[in-house]
Amino acid sequence: MSKKVLLIAGDGIGPEISVEAKRVLDIINQQFDLGIEYDEALLGGAAIDATGVPLPDETLAKAKACDAILFGAIGGPKWDNIDRDIRPEKGLLGLRSGLELFGNLRPAILYPQLADASSLKPEVVSGLDILIVRELTGGIYFGEPRGIRTLENGEREGYNTYKYNETEIRRIAKVAFEAAKKRGGKLCSVDKANVLEATVLWREIVQDMAKDYPEVELSHMYVDNAAMQLVRAPKQFDVIVTGNLFGDILSDAAAMLTGSIGMLPSASLDKNGRGMYEPCHGSAPDIAGQGKANPLAMVLSAAMMLRYSLNATAAADAIEVAVGKVLDQGYRTPDIHTEGMKLVSTSEMGDALVAAL
Amino acid sequence: MSKKVLLIAGDGIGPEISVEAKRVLDIINQQFDLGIEYDEALLGGAAIDATGVPLPDETLAKAKACDAILFGAIGGPKWDNIDRDIRPEKGLLGLRSGLELFGNLRPAILYPQLADASSLKPEVVSGLDILIVRELTGGIYFGEPRGIRTLENGEREGYNTYKYNETEIRRIAKVAFEAAKKRGGKLCSVDKANVLEATVLWREIVQDMAKDYPEVELSHMYVDNAAMQLVRAPKQFDVIVTGNLFGDILSDAAAMLTGSIGMLPSASLDKNGRGMYEPCHGSAPDIAGQGKANPLAMVLSAAMMLRYSLNATAAADAIEVAVGKVLDQGYRTPDIHTEGMKLVSTSEMGDALVAAL
Ligand SMILES: CC(C)[C@H](C(=O)O)[C@@H](O)C(=O)O
Ligand SMILES: CC(C)[C@H](C(=O)O)[C@@H](O)C(=O)O
Repeated sequence: MSKKVLLIAGDGIGPEISVEAKRVLDIINQQFDLGIEYDEALLGGAAIDATGVPLPDETLAKAKACDAILFGAIGGPKWDNIDRDIRPEKGLLGLRSGLELFGNLRPAILYPQLADASSLKPEVVSGLDILIVRELTGGIYFGEPRGIRTLENGEREGYNTYKYNETEIRRIAKVAFEAAKKRGGKLCSVDKANVLEATVLWREIVQDMAKDYPEVELSHMYVDNAAMQLVRAPKQFDVIVTGNLFGDILSDAAAMLTGSIGMLPSASLDKNGRGMYEPCHGSAPDIAGQGKANPLAMVLSAAMMLRYSLNATAAADAIEVAVGKVLDQGYRTPDIHTEGMKLVSTSEMGDALVAAL
Repeated sequence: MSKKVLLIAGDGIGPEISVEAKRVLDIINQQFDLGIEYDEALLGGAAIDATGVPLPDETLAKAKACDAILFGAIGGPKWDNIDRDIRPEKGLLGLRSGLELFGNLRPAILYPQLADASSLKPEVVSGLDILIVRELTGGIYFGEPRGIRTLENGEREGYNTYKYNETEIRRIAKVAFEAAKKRGGKLCSVDKANVLEATVLWREIVQDMAKDYPEVELSHMYVDNAAMQLVRAPKQFDVIVTGNLFGDILSDAAAMLTGSIGMLPSASLDKNGRGMYEPCHGSAPDIAGQGKANPLAMVLSAAMMLRYSLNATAAADAIEVAVGKVLDQGYRTPDIHTEGMKLVSTSEMGDALVAAL
C-alpha cells in the first residue's frame, strides 16, 4: 500500500533542510518498506516568484490528494513589501485553512545533550517536556470582519475579529484531552476569560468537556500568567491547549525555553489525522544557502509524520533514535554548538544521520 | 501647594502592602515637605462587597479629582463566579478607561541584590533594564462589538473586536519614543502585522513617526518572536511599545525574567501625566493577610508616582535609595528570600524602610 507525501521546501533555509529530511526519509522508506511516494509543490515566496500567488491552486489540489505534507519554512525580506493579500504567510494560512488543519501540536522538549543551550537555569528546564496544542484554523487569524477602514473623521482604523464557536472549541479541546490522557494526564487551558468574551465561552466549553475525561486533571490559566509561569517554572505543565493567537505566542516562548528551536518539530492535523509537518523555526533568511541551518527539526517533523499520519511508529522511533545518536556523538550545527562539540554543516549533519541509520 | 493622592488598597494583599507604602510616603511627605493629602476609595472586590459594583461612581469621581492614584491590587476567588459584568477586573478596566490612562509603563529591572531569584542564567539577565510601554485603553480590551451570541445553527459563539485608530497609535507611540529618547535610544514596536490588519496600521504609523525621532533607533518585531527573544536574550531590548493585549502578555513575561515580580512597579498615565500607580503583581489571595506579601513593588510605585505625577524627583530618589539599602542589608520577604538572607514579614520590611529613611 503506497503512501503519498507532499514535500514543500519553501523559502530561506527550507530547501536545504528539506534535502536532508528527504535523505533520511528515503532510507527509512527502504528499511521499513513503507512505500512512500513523493510529490512536490510550491508555497509562499517561492510560489509568488513562480506563479504570482503564495498558494497556487495546484499546491492546494496536491495537498488534498496526499496522505501527509512535509514542509520546510516560508517568508523572507524579499517579499516584505509585497501587497498584503499575497504575502508568503497567506499561503501557509490558506493551506492550514483549506485543509482544515485545526489541531496544531507543538512539543517543547529539552534534549539532555543540549541542556546547556537553554538561557534558563538547568534545574528549571532539565527534563522539560511540554506539548502545546494550538487551535490553527480559527480565532483572530481568520475572523471576519477585518481590514483597515477610514472613519468618519477621516482617520484610519485597523480592525480584526476574534471569535470561536462551540464546535471549534470542542474539537481542539478533544485533541488536547486525548493527548493529555496519553501523556502526563494534566491539561492547562489558557485564555483571557477575565477580559475577552470569546474566551469566556472557550473556558466554559473546555470545563464542560472535562467530565468526559475523569483521568485528566484540568486547570485554567490566564494568558499573561501562562507566559509568566512558562518563564518561572515550565515543568509544571504537561499539555497546554489554547487558541490560535495565544498558541502562536506561547508555543514560541516554550520552544525557546529549550534554547534549541532548531530541534523542534510540529504537526498540524485535520479531524481524520491527515497532517502537515514542519519545524517550529522559521525560514531564517539571514543564514539561507550557507550550510548553517539545523536540519534536525525538519527530520523530527518527518518522524512525527510517520507516527501521526502514516501509522509507522517503528520507523518514527528509528529516526528519533538516530537523532539522539548523532547528538550523543557530538555533532552540532552552529545554532546548537558549544565548546568541545563537533561543528558540522547542514549536509554533514545529514551525513551523520545517514550513518546512524 | 497641596497634592491629593487617592489611595485604593483593593483586595487580597492590597490592603497590607498599602499600609507599608503609606508609612513610607508619610515620612517622605514630611521630609520633603510635599504637602500630600490623602483620600481613599473602593475598587474591585472590596467595592462589590460594599456597593454591589466594582467601580462605584464615587470612586471614579474621587479619581478624577485627585493628582495621582496609588493602587494595590484587585480580584480573588471570592468573586470568581460573579456575573461577568461586575467582576472585580471590570472596576480596574473602567478606571483605566474613565481616566483615559492610555500609557502604561512597565519596567522590568533586575536588582543586582536579587540576581539569584531569576530562573534565567545570570549572564542572560544581569543588568536587565527594559521598559515596556503598553497601550491601556484600546485594542481588544475595549473593542466593540463583543459578547457571546447564538448562531443560526443554534450553537454559541464568543467574539471580540481588536481595533486601533491612528490617534490611539500615535499617542502611545509618542510616549514610547519619548521614553526611548531619555533612555537607551532604542525602541522595538511589537505587532503581528503578518496576520492582523489592526497591527498593519500600527506598524505603519509607528514607522511614520520615526522621522520625528532621528535619535531613536526603531525596529519592529512580531509578537511570537518577541516572546521568544525575551526568553533568549532580553538585554537586546531597551523600550518595547505594543498594544493592550500583547503588552499584557509580554510585560508579565518580562517581569518574570527578573524572578522578583514582587519588586516591580508600574504607571498608567493620561495625556497630561496624571496617573495611577500600582505593583505589577496581582492580589495574591493565597497569601493575603499572612504578612508574607512583599510591599516593595507598591513602595516603588509610590516612588514612580512622585517622579511622574507629583514632580518630586528628589523624594522619588530617596525612596529608591531606601529600597536599595534594605536589600543591601539582606531583608527579604518570602517571595525573594534566599539562603543567608533575613526573612521578614510585610510590616518588618516596612520597618526596615522606615529605618532606612
Ligand atoms: C508565519 C506565521 C503566519 C505563522 C503564524 O503566526 O501562525 C508562524 O508564526 C507560526 O507560528 O507558524
Ligand atoms: C486584571 C487584568 C484585567 C489586567 C489586564 O489584563 O490588563 C492585569 O492582568 C494587568 O495586566 O494589569
